[in-house]
Amino acid sequence: MTIAPAFDRTLLPPIEHGSRVDAVRSALAVPGAACDAFVYTDLIDVRWLTGFSGSNGWAVVTADDLILGTDGRYGDRARAETAASGARVIAETSRVRLEERLVEAVRSAARVGLDPTATSWSDWTRFANDIALVPIASAVKEHRLVKDDAEIARIAAAAAAADAALAEVEPMLFAAVDSPVTEADIRNELEYRMRRYGADDRSYETIVAAGPEHGARPHHEPTDRRIVEGDTVIIDVGALVDGYHSDMTRSYVIGEPTERQRELYELVSQSQHAGIDAVADGTAAREVDRASRDVFARAGYGDWYLHGTGHGVGLEIHERPFHSLASDDPIAAGNVVTVEPGLYRVGFGGFRIEDLLVVTEHGSRRLTHAPERPFN
Amino acid sequence: MTIAPAFDRTLLPPIEHGSRVDAVRSALAVPGAACDAFVYTDLIDVRWLTGFSGSNGWAVVTADDLILGTDGRYGDRARAETAASGARVIAETSRVRLEERLVEAVRSAARVGLDPTATSWSDWTRFANDIALVPIASAVKEHRLVKDDAEIARIAAAAAAADAALAEVEPMLFAAVDSPVTEADIRNELEYRMRRYGADDRSYETIVAAGPEHGARPHHEPTDRRIVEGDTVIIDVGALVDGYHSDMTRSYVIGEPTERQRELYELVSQSQHAGIDAVADGTAAREVDRASRDVFARAGYGDWYLHGTGHGVGLEIHERPFHSLASDDPIAAGNVVTVEPGLYRVGFGGFRIEDLLVVTEHGSRRLTHAPERPFN
Repeated sequence: MTIAPAFDRTLLPPIEHGSRVDAVRSALAVPGAACDAFVYTDLIDVRWLTGFSGSNGWAVVTADDLILGTDGRYGDRARAETAASGARVIAETSRVRLEERLVEAVRSAARVGLDPTATSWSDWTRFANDIALVPIASAVKEHRLVKDDAEIARIAAAAAAADAALAEVEPMLFAAVDSPVTEADIRNELEYRMRRYGADDRSYETIVAAGPEHGARPHHEPTDRRIVEGDTVIIDVGALVDGYHSDMTRSYVIGEPTERQRELYELVSQSQHAGIDAVADGTAAREVDRASRDVFARAGYGDWYLHGTGHGVGLEIHERPFHSLASDDPIAAGNVVTVEPGLYRVGFGGFRIEDLLVVTEHGSRRLTHAPERPFN
Repeated sequence: MTIAPAFDRTLLPPIEHGSRVDAVRSALAVPGAACDAFVYTDLIDVRWLTGFSGSNGWAVVTADDLILGTDGRYGDRARAETAASGARVIAETSRVRLEERLVEAVRSAARVGLDPTATSWSDWTRFANDIALVPIASAVKEHRLVKDDAEIARIAAAAAAADAALAEVEPMLFAAVDSPVTEADIRNELEYRMRRYGADDRSYETIVAAGPEHGARPHHEPTDRRIVEGDTVIIDVGALVDGYHSDMTRSYVIGEPTERQRELYELVSQSQHAGIDAVADGTAAREVDRASRDVFARAGYGDWYLHGTGHGVGLEIHERPFHSLASDDPIAAGNVVTVEPGLYRVGFGGFRIEDLLVVTEHGSRRLTHAPERPFN
């Protein structure tokens, strides 16, 4: 039953938590620092700092301490997962007691920084009775934008599992004319196979959008609709490895493609190449969007393009930088980003092509390697 | 590729949103009501009220209006999903503009009720500039505790998909001695099959905990550990249908069970029966816990029992009532609850048996029907 995975988990480099904690701590040491301690309540931030992947917890960073607090269920797991970060683990079964331990952990700090977007109003007002809180946007979110080699290796491993699953499922898609298959079937087979190829899970709910109606919806959820001859099909699929996401889209025509289907697929491909060519350290993310969008506009299909051209990927599937005309995000070496233009029109369906790239000094390196096979 | 589902989705009764909105609205009409409008930001509450299942949105209930706000991506889907509730849909691509629309929607209200646990400090303080906010615990959460027939039908359908998947996977488990299989393999096969039997998804991440170490962890995550002769195995698996969850656990011994394995399985079974017998309208949830716990304590295994005896299930996998000694929750007819005692000890492994029940006037009715087959 066990098959060879698409990557070797034992070769993934260890995550270096020490330098992460140092990076956050350095902001406490500067003259005029806004606070003497940080409390992190966003679970992705907590994971990045400490390694803890449970569903309930907080982290405290002070000049000389790193503490992870969680509930009693997670005590053993928290100690195992945070060993590399050296976090001191507090596990309390009582919610009230866990909150008292948080207050104790920062009692010596004159001011405590907390992200106001990651804390409920009721928690904030309760903490504020005991702690001098300062609303500070999470610095961890900034640090998370640039990925190190250990992170890139995990994203690449996730991408490899998705590549392998897609290669196995594409023949079922092209056989749809003879062997009935639905959008949901294709999703099920992909998500099953990503795990068989070593992924921990899907990265997000797989999109399979077939035919003239569903194919025209960029975020379609798979249904029991049968895939039939003449359909365009969009498959947007990614895997998860050690908390890190991959993201990829391929598009297809079932049966013999029409002239228009061939032309529009080619146009999306040109748009994607233009976007990829625009990716480099120091570029504005909006320039990637502009490059892809211009290809469509020049061909007279500008109003068939219904979304931005991409986004960052890491411990979250959607992170900065966002490639959109409204974006002020810069692109920097070490960002991992998608480039994913598409065309959508009810009556026609749609195509999208998406790859995942590491930004380098002069361009980018691709992490998704599934070949494009739009036509059978 | 498509197989017959474990339930007929076309026979699921429609959800009656009208009575839900009326129930919430009635609290606005009473003399001395704390507010003139409710804003709901918890997405489960929003779904229960309006039918909208997207990942971003809010609902407003006033004396004469029901409004769903969401972002531009979800406009079409929101209109389709909320048709039965009659919600007026506002979809805005701009986050700022969507927030302005929320303020407009409640501008005529003198006081606006908002759940302070479901709103971030930054959102609350921003809204409070424009709206007279009153912190009020969500009444929807109370209404959600009692399930109607349409909800029970969905939970039962989810349970049927899990039953069918488990029946197919159990032979792989018992064949583990001859055909290598890991915890992760069993999880993968179960989640794949639940969808093939018609489920929208898993209800939660399936637990497969095998052997003397992993079996002793109530919330173990499946690993690549091979399942071998002599292992105890706990499988905790549920499905999702139309937003509603199921939850079930079965336990096994691989190969010929030892005398002790037989005895302890029987003890868990007795504990579960005692818990189920305690479930009835008007009971205190803690009495269910006490009934199951007493069986273990009398047999001298009280300290092998590491968690509470169950919880409510609905649009969330863990809801009130909670069966624990510290619980003040009552059990009422129409609640859907688990009863799931277990024994855990490093060196031995563990057993848990869990079923899902609808509370009735004089007892309960079971929704999970997978037979117990602990020994091959």
